[in-house]
Amino acid sequence: MEGRTVKASQSYLSELALPNDVNGLGTLLGGRIMHLVDIAGAVAAARHSRQFVVTAAFDHMSFLEPVYEGELIVLRASVNRAFNTSMEVGVKVHAENMRAQDEQRHVASAFLTFVALDKNRKKLRVPPLIPETNEEKRRYEQAGQRREYRLAKR
Amino acid sequence: MEGRTVKASQSYLSELALPNDVNGLGTLLGGRIMHLVDIAGAVAAARHSRQFVVTAAFDHMSFLEPVYEGELIVLRASVNRAFNTSMEVGVKVHAENMRAQDEQRHVASAFLTFVALDKNRKKLRVPPLIPETNEEKRRYEQAGQRREYRLAKR
Amino acid sequence: MEGRTVKASQSYLSELALPNDVNGLGTLLGGRIMHLVDIAGAVAAARHSRQFVVTAAFDHMSFLEPVYEGELIVLRASVNRAFNTSMEVGVKVHAENMRAQDEQRHVASAFLTFVALDKNRKKLRVPPLIPETNEEKRRYEQAGQRREYRLAKR
Amino acid sequence: MEGRTVKASQSYLSELALPNDVNGLGTLLGGRIMHLVDIAGAVAAARHSRQFVVTAAFDHMSFLEPVYEGELIVLRASVNRAFNTSMEVGVKVHAENMRAQDEQRHVASAFLTFVALDKNRKKLRVPPLIPETNEEKRRYEQAGQRREYRLAKR
Amino acid sequence: MEGRTVKASQSYLSELALPNDVNGLGTLLGGRIMHLVDIAGAVAAARHSRQFVVTAAFDHMSFLEPVYEGELIVLRASVNRAFNTSMEVGVKVHAENMRAQDEQRHVASAFLTFVALDKNRKKLRVPPLIPETNEEKRRYEQAGQRREYRLAKR
Amino acid sequence: MEGRTVKASQSYLSELALPNDVNGLGTLLGGRIMHLVDIAGAVAAARHSRQFVVTAAFDHMSFLEPVYEGELIVLRASVNRAFNTSMEVGVKVHAENMRAQDEQRHVASAFLTFVALDKNRKKLRVPPLIPETNEEKRRYEQAGQRREYRLAKR
Repeated sequence: MEGRTVKASQSYLSELALPNDVNGLGTLLGGRIMHLVDIAGAVAAARHSRQFVVTAAFDHMSFLEPVYEGELIVLRASVNRAFNTSMEVGVKVHAENMRAQDEQRHVASAFLTFVALDKNRKKLRVPPLIPETNEEKRRYEQAGQRREYRLAKR
Repeated sequence: MEGRTVKASQSYLSELALPNDVNGLGTLLGGRIMHLVDIAGAVAAARHSRQFVVTAAFDHMSFLEPVYEGELIVLRASVNRAFNTSMEVGVKVHAENMRAQDEQRHVASAFLTFVALDKNRKKLRVPPLIPETNEEKRRYEQAGQRREYRLAKR
Repeated sequence: MEGRTVKASQSYLSELALPNDVNGLGTLLGGRIMHLVDIAGAVAAARHSRQFVVTAAFDHMSFLEPVYEGELIVLRASVNRAFNTSMEVGVKVHAENMRAQDEQRHVASAFLTFVALDKNRKKLRVPPLIPETNEEKRRYEQAGQRREYRLAKR
Repeated sequence: MEGRTVKASQSYLSELALPNDVNGLGTLLGGRIMHLVDIAGAVAAARHSRQFVVTAAFDHMSFLEPVYEGELIVLRASVNRAFNTSMEVGVKVHAENMRAQDEQRHVASAFLTFVALDKNRKKLRVPPLIPETNEEKRRYEQAGQRREYRLAKR
Repeated sequence: MEGRTVKASQSYLSELALPNDVNGLGTLLGGRIMHLVDIAGAVAAARHSRQFVVTAAFDHMSFLEPVYEGELIVLRASVNRAFNTSMEVGVKVHAENMRAQDEQRHVASAFLTFVALDKNRKKLRVPPLIPETNEEKRRYEQAGQRREYRLAKR
Repeated sequence: MEGRTVKASQSYLSELALPNDVNGLGTLLGGRIMHLVDIAGAVAAARHSRQFVVTAAFDHMSFLEPVYEGELIVLRASVNRAFNTSMEVGVKVHAENMRAQDEQRHVASAFLTFVALDKNRKKLRVPPLIPETNEEKRRYEQAGQRREYRLAKR
């Protein structure tokens, strides 16, 4: 059986913007984008923890650009940092008109918190994320700051 | 033709939690909930503005309770305040086990910002929301504070 | 945990008319409307009986008005009367163009019969419905007449 | 180009009962069956009239047997009679467990009325249906009686 | 209970070409057609073997004609021959514009191999197919030749 | 506006195996896999040609491994070679259990032919594909051989 090693802690999804998910102006519903953001984030968190994961929270998110019917929506997610039983995942969303250009437009960025649960919905410890590249280290630091900020706001 | 007057600026949606939207633990995906939150919010904003609306931003949102397969998810949305070309909409999400209890569990609450657009995606002015009840006045005030806070954070 | 008491024996659903459910004339398929009528009716019957329910029969139903793509379809269902093991549910369907008007058009009305079943598909007794308002008393009486008429027609 | 002559005025559809359309007891929702009945009827009416058709009314319909998840649902529709601008279509629904038996169980029967419309939703005349077999003649006669009964009931 | 004997080893499916399965040119995606071809083939193979079946292989397949949005796609499948634990199924796909013509256009033809499995995914023997008509005998012979050709190619 | 350059002529899709696409044995339908293979191939062909593309043909394809409900299905497609008006695209399909392992299992491989069409469905010339890496050169050569073989078989 041929195998292929997966980059743990990350995911990459893409999906076409279909008529049923488009409003009267011909652009993709914001809620459909969030739906996909959550799935991309959950795949990254499941790959990191090797457990079932559920979404605990969504941070503030703005929509920068519309996505038009027939375009490709591309999602890149990565676990930024693991805490005891939770993980912060960052997701970047781009849109691409496959026929007219070879650039993807940045549509939105989001930070989500996932927790790992066992079959009885008891929280599980997740392994730490060890940042390697400078980019990963920057994300790791900022995830810690965002967490402190969220805890302080409660 | 029999008519029925609609309470403008509000909406009420409900939807069953179906197998395709449920994770391996038997609970509804967070992203599917946000998808429905966005639709409920858009209906309230469209009713208030009588225009096409698109989602501009989602505020931070936490998931307080799981929703199980087969349960009813119930969404109540209302426009809290209209600014020049944008509206803040609040959405409350409850879950209900139709067979076992007559209470709905509070699952999540969200604040979203919608803008009204014409066919060329030009922003349109939206009519002001005139709060009437004390509850509506409280929401109106708080929407203004959240907006100031968001503008300050930029 | 915040709770919210549900009006038992009733339901309220709404749903957007999407491209996949629309015919070549741009209007919602009658069968999609009946699909939603059945779901709204089942929610009301499940809330009344606190059991699994299945549809036993649909009465004659006419479509009075088309529903256009992008409109909101709104369904209000209430148990009119409970017999030994069955319930008559009435469902009213309205359509609403969220952008152009603040009236809902009456699209169709239906009466359905549901029965409550246990896990082995054995029929269960359902609690009686006690009509309170004059409107509820009128519906209760008429449900009895419709039942006699249906039994006589066999 | 190879062609194949279609028996006008009839249709035959089949569809698997999928998890998303099944209730907590593992059986297909009545509303999903009606959805399919309407589509089968519309195909028969469109083939007869060679026009866009919309559902005008559904007659009383009972569900005789449950359809279980994974079973095949089979629908046979035929135009029974054409009046000036409307057609009565009869639809028979069977269920089949493909693995355990070679009989189909009769699940439901329905009579629907369709009208043919042009692009402006103006009613169009439909060609008469000429019954040929004895079975077709019996259906033709009974469709006339049902229509008189419906007109009398108004 | 009224029954209806099914022609074993065959199936007949039809489905409308919906907006969500159509490309920017208004024609049905090839992949959606293959999806339906596989379902039609699986129904025929399940009816023949009275077992769960899974697709083992798809032969080369060309698309001869486009299918337009709103058209009916019609699939006819029949088991051509049963080997020890596998079955070759042939599927023919036609498209039909219900309003404009009474001919169906030949869109594609496919040969698939299915195997029957028990609950533990162990291969099961399938009963032989006894060809009766000349057409069935021709298909039976050719299925044997295609199998020899496939085995030789390995 | 932040942009991101896309690797032309390739695509990468992933998708969860959902209950509605799974058979009675809990594994993904072969037809659903082909559906996704076609979409992944079309994205690669559209990116290469910057035109609308339609599937002209599917080569023989075997299913090597089952995909279980809840697993991730991962598709990698690349244009192997462009001819005058057609492109050969290769697609590799892997399955991944996100919780139990960090290897992906090879499920299937496919070769498809796409053609680029203008709005009137007239075939368009596509730009040549210039292979760069050794891997790309090998695929380019083999695509030419497969094409000769297909032309010879007619």
